[in-house]
Amino acid sequence: MTVTFTHEALPQRVVFASYQAAGHVADEVARLGAARPMVIAAEAGRSLADPLVAALPAAVRHTEVVMHVPTDVAERARTAAEEHDVDVLISIGGGSTTGLAKAVALTTGLPIVAVPTTYAGSEATNVWGLTEGGRKTTGVDPRVLPRSVVYDASLMLSLPVPLSVASGLNALAHCVDSMWAPRTDPIDQALALEGIRALRQGLPEVVRDPQGIDGRERTLYGAYLAAVAFASAGSGLHHKICHVLGGMYNLPHAQTHAVVLPHVLAFNAPSVPDTEQRMAAAFGETSAVQGLQRLREQVGAPRALRDYGLRETDIPAAVDAVLAAVPPNNPTLVNRENLEGLLRRAWDGRETG
Amino acid sequence: MTVTFTHEALPQRVVFASYQAAGHVADEVARLGAARPMVIAAEAGRSLADPLVAALPAAVRHTEVVMHVPTDVAERARTAAEEHDVDVLISIGGGSTTGLAKAVALTTGLPIVAVPTTYAGSEATNVWGLTEGGRKTTGVDPRVLPRSVVYDASLMLSLPVPLSVASGLNALAHCVDSMWAPRTDPIDQALALEGIRALRQGLPEVVRDPQGIDGRERTLYGAYLAAVAFASAGSGLHHKICHVLGGMYNLPHAQTHAVVLPHVLAFNAPSVPDTEQRMAAAFGETSAVQGLQRLREQVGAPRALRDYGLRETDIPAAVDAVLAAVPPNNPTLVNRENLEGLLRRAWDGRETG
Repeated sequence: MTVTFTHEALPQRVVFASYQAAGHVADEVARLGAARPMVIAAEAGRSLADPLVAALPAAVRHTEVVMHVPTDVAERARTAAEEHDVDVLISIGGGSTTGLAKAVALTTGLPIVAVPTTYAGSEATNVWGLTEGGRKTTGVDPRVLPRSVVYDASLMLSLPVPLSVASGLNALAHCVDSMWAPRTDPIDQALALEGIRALRQGLPEVVRDPQGIDGRERTLYGAYLAAVAFASAGSGLHHKICHVLGGMYNLPHAQTHAVVLPHVLAFNAPSVPDTEQRMAAAFGETSAVQGLQRLREQVGAPRALRDYGLRETDIPAAVDAVLAAVPPNNPTLVNRENLEGLLRRAWDGRETG
Repeated sequence: MTVTFTHEALPQRVVFASYQAAGHVADEVARLGAARPMVIAAEAGRSLADPLVAALPAAVRHTEVVMHVPTDVAERARTAAEEHDVDVLISIGGGSTTGLAKAVALTTGLPIVAVPTTYAGSEATNVWGLTEGGRKTTGVDPRVLPRSVVYDASLMLSLPVPLSVASGLNALAHCVDSMWAPRTDPIDQALALEGIRALRQGLPEVVRDPQGIDGRERTLYGAYLAAVAFASAGSGLHHKICHVLGGMYNLPHAQTHAVVLPHVLAFNAPSVPDTEQRMAAAFGETSAVQGLQRLREQVGAPRALRDYGLRETDIPAAVDAVLAAVPPNNPTLVNRENLEGLLRRAWDGRETG
C-alpha cells in the first residue's frame, strides 16, 4: 500500500442544531461583522424563511429564485445587492437558492451564510453553476463557498417523503462515487464512509417517521458529508453515467441516480475489496451491495430506468457516450461489453447482489 | 440520538507523497506566487533540508531552532524575515521548527509551507506557542496555520524507532482523546477513527521494518489526522492528566502519554459503548482496550509511571490537580476515588483489558 494524495480542506464553519436556525443565523451574521444582509429565499419558502430572519435588519429580500440559476436572474440579484449596499448574503432554501447566492458572491465577493432546506449539499461546495439559453456553465471559485452553514433539521420536516428519499439517495450516490472518483483521497473516503453510515440510518427513519427529528438530523448530516467528499473527490463513474443519461434522454435527476447507483456499486466493488469492506461496515452489512440493497428496500427506491423514459433502443448510444466520459482511474476497467451490461441491468431493473 | 455540533474546517492544502518533497515544495511555493523564501531548518536537520530546497532561490536560511520557541529566538527570526524581504516561510523539521515558522507568521502574516520530519502534527493546527522565562504562552490564530503541508514519509526513515514509537503513540493519544474532548464533533471523530486505523497499522510496521516506507507512510498519515482532529476537538481527560503530571513532576512527555492512554481509555470506554465499538473496529479488535493493548505490545510501549520518576506518594497531589482540570463533558463522571484508581494503575503499570 502506498499513501499518495493531495487534499485541499476548504474553510467553512458549520453550525448544526435543530430548532435553532434563527439564533444561529444572527450569530453567524454578527461573526462576519455584517449589518446589511440580503435574504435570498423563494416566495414558496417564505414560511420557512421568515421566522429565521425576523429579528435581523434585512437590507433587502430577494425572492426571484429559478432552477439552474439563469444568468439574467443572477444579474438582477447582483444589481439588488449593489443597490442596497449589502454586506452579507443569507440564502434560505434548496440548491437553486444557494446557487443564486453563489452567483452573487462570484462577482461581488460577498460572504454567504447558507441555511439549506433540502439535502442538496450545494452549501458545502465551492462549485457554482449558471445557465444561459439552456446551456449550463459550472466552475469552481473559493468566493462562492459559504463562510457559514446553519443546519437545522427541523426545516426539513416539511420536505415530502418521496423527495426526501430521492434527495437522500442522491447524497448517498455522492458518498459511494467519492470512494473511487478521480481526485479521491483517504480523507474524502473517511468522510464519505461516515456519510454512508449516517444516511443508511437516517433515511429509513425519515420514511418510518417523517415528522421525527432524528432521521432528519442523520440524513442532513449525511448529506453534508456527501457534499464535502464529493466536492473534493469529483465525479466518478456513477455521476458520469447519470450525467450522460440525464443530458441525452432528459431523465429525472434523482430517480436516475437512485436506479443507477446499485449497478455501479456492484460493477466496481469486486475490484476494490478493501474499500468494499469499509463500505459494507458503514452500511452495517457483510457486503456493500447487500447493504445498499437493504436500504433501497427500506425506502422504496426506484428500480428501473425503463420506468422513467429510457427505451431499450437508447442503450447503445448511451454506452458510446458514457465510454467517452469514463474516469481513467475507475477501479473496474470499463469496456463496451461490461458497460452495456451495467446499463441493461439498470434499464430493466434486475437488482444486483 | 441528537446531532448537534459546530465544526470549523481550516483551509489547508496537503500534498502527501514519498520521495517527492523537493518537487512539491517548489510547486507549493509557486502556487503561492512567492519567490523569496526563508528556509527554516535546524543545523541538525541540514542533510534532510538541503536537497529539498537546492533548486529554490532561498532569500535566507535560518537555522536557529530552539525547543518551545523562546521569544528572543522568534524575534531574531522575524527580523531576518524582514531584512531579507521574505515572501514565504518554508519550515523543514519537527515541532520546534514548525513552531518557529508559526511565530514568524503570527506577526508578519507570511504564508508557511511546512515539511514535517516527525509525527508531531503541529503543521496541521492553527495553534502557536512561545516561551519567555520558562513560561509557555499558547494561542490560536488563523495566520499560523501552514497554507500547504508537504508530507514525505521518506524524511522519517532516519527517525529512530523508539522516538517513532513515542511520537506515534502521542499521535494515537490525540485520536483517542478527540473522541470525547470538549469541542469534539462527529467530523473530528470520523477523522480520529481514521487516524487510529492508520496508526495501528503503521506503527507495528515501523518497528518491524524501520527502513520500509509503508509503515512510515501510514504512521505519518495517522499523525496528520490526529493533529486535525485534536486541533478541532481540544484537550480531553487524557491530555489534562498528562499536562498536570508533566508540569508538576517533570515527567517525560511522550512516555507519560504512552503510559496513561490505556488507563483513560479503559476509564471512559464503558460510558460510551457506541464510540467504544467504533474505536474497536478501527483498532481491528473486538474491544478498543484490547486493540490498544495489542498495539502497545507490538511496539513495546512503556508501561508504568513509576519507571519515569513518579513516586507513589505524589499521587494524591496529582489527583487534586487533575480534579480541578477535568473537562466537564468527560463521558465517565470523574471523582476523587476513580481518578486515584486510574492514576495508581498508571503508576504501577497494571495493564487494563
